[in-house]
Amino acid sequence: MEPAEIFVQAALKSWNIQLKRADAFFDTISDEGLQQEIAPGKNRLIYLMGHLIAVNDSMTSLFGQGERSFEHLDDAFVKNPDRSGLPMPDAASLREDWRKAKSILTANFAALSPADWMSRHTAMTDEDFAKEPSRNKLSVLLNRTNHMAYHIGQMVLVKGKS
Amino acid sequence: MEPAEIFVQAALKSWNIQLKRADAFFDTISDEGLQQEIAPGKNRLIYLMGHLIAVNDSMTSLFGQGERSFEHLDDAFVKNPDRSGLPMPDAASLREDWRKAKSILTANFAALSPADWMSRHTAMTDEDFAKEPSRNKLSVLLNRTNHMAYHIGQMVLVKGKS
Repeated sequence: MEPAEIFVQAALKSWNIQLKRADAFFDTISDEGLQQEIAPGKNRLIYLMGHLIAVNDSMTSLFGQGERSFEHLDDAFVKNPDRSGLPMPDAASLREDWRKAKSILTANFAALSPADWMSRHTAMTDEDFAKEPSRNKLSVLLNRTNHMAYHIGQMVLVKGKS
Repeated sequence: MEPAEIFVQAALKSWNIQLKRADAFFDTISDEGLQQEIAPGKNRLIYLMGHLIAVNDSMTSLFGQGERSFEHLDDAFVKNPDRSGLPMPDAASLREDWRKAKSILTANFAALSPADWMSRHTAMTDEDFAKEPSRNKLSVLLNRTNHMAYHIGQMVLVKGKS
């Protein structure tokens, strides 16, 4: 295997570890349980679920792989804090979105070659990219992986909450 | 730049983003503030500081770059939960350890070539590594980066706590 191919594999493995962890977590939480706050006065689980769907989904357009499927979630789950009063889908429909987002991204990622991962994302100009070639699609994936880990660290706090 | 070099640069950038974020966070917290819990009944900030020092430090031996400097923190901060009753260094000395760990790792990482990052870590046998070449030093760095993000997500919850 080529070095670049091995690095891509390592990055995708790291992404998949976090994705499975979030997945397994949401599976253990009931729809009512999603209304729990991660800590007093902080975000509810349902907000973080919508937040992760929308933020992860942004990789579709950033990678030039088509239109986003969940841009309509940005208002309630990204651009505004929890309890903004903006309409949110119910838990069952959000779970369905989570599954769809996961399968779209998995298919998208599988379609990228190491050279594609090395290429710029759509939010970078050619000029900026020439100066900083490490700001490529792979770096977006690494950031999104950290972002998911960051929120998983918060979500697990509801476990064993008295 | 070679593809492998660009990938290493992206992974190190991702690590440095999280490291700076933890750094900036600890700088805003007083020694007394480190006694705060991230959420009621959960880990204290001082525990997470020691935990991150010890877990990050483990990369020194995993990468074959010498003996660990902070293995003595494992008992109180990794192998046992917070409030185990085991002796902990005071906040000032832990902050000093944090700075040292950071500078040791930064120097260690700078000494690794892309080929080094591709090579196996010391907890892998040659046989296992032949089967899974993506379980290399870079994959350890990615996991440690996610681990740090996970705990940063928890630490920031003390901000604006009523």
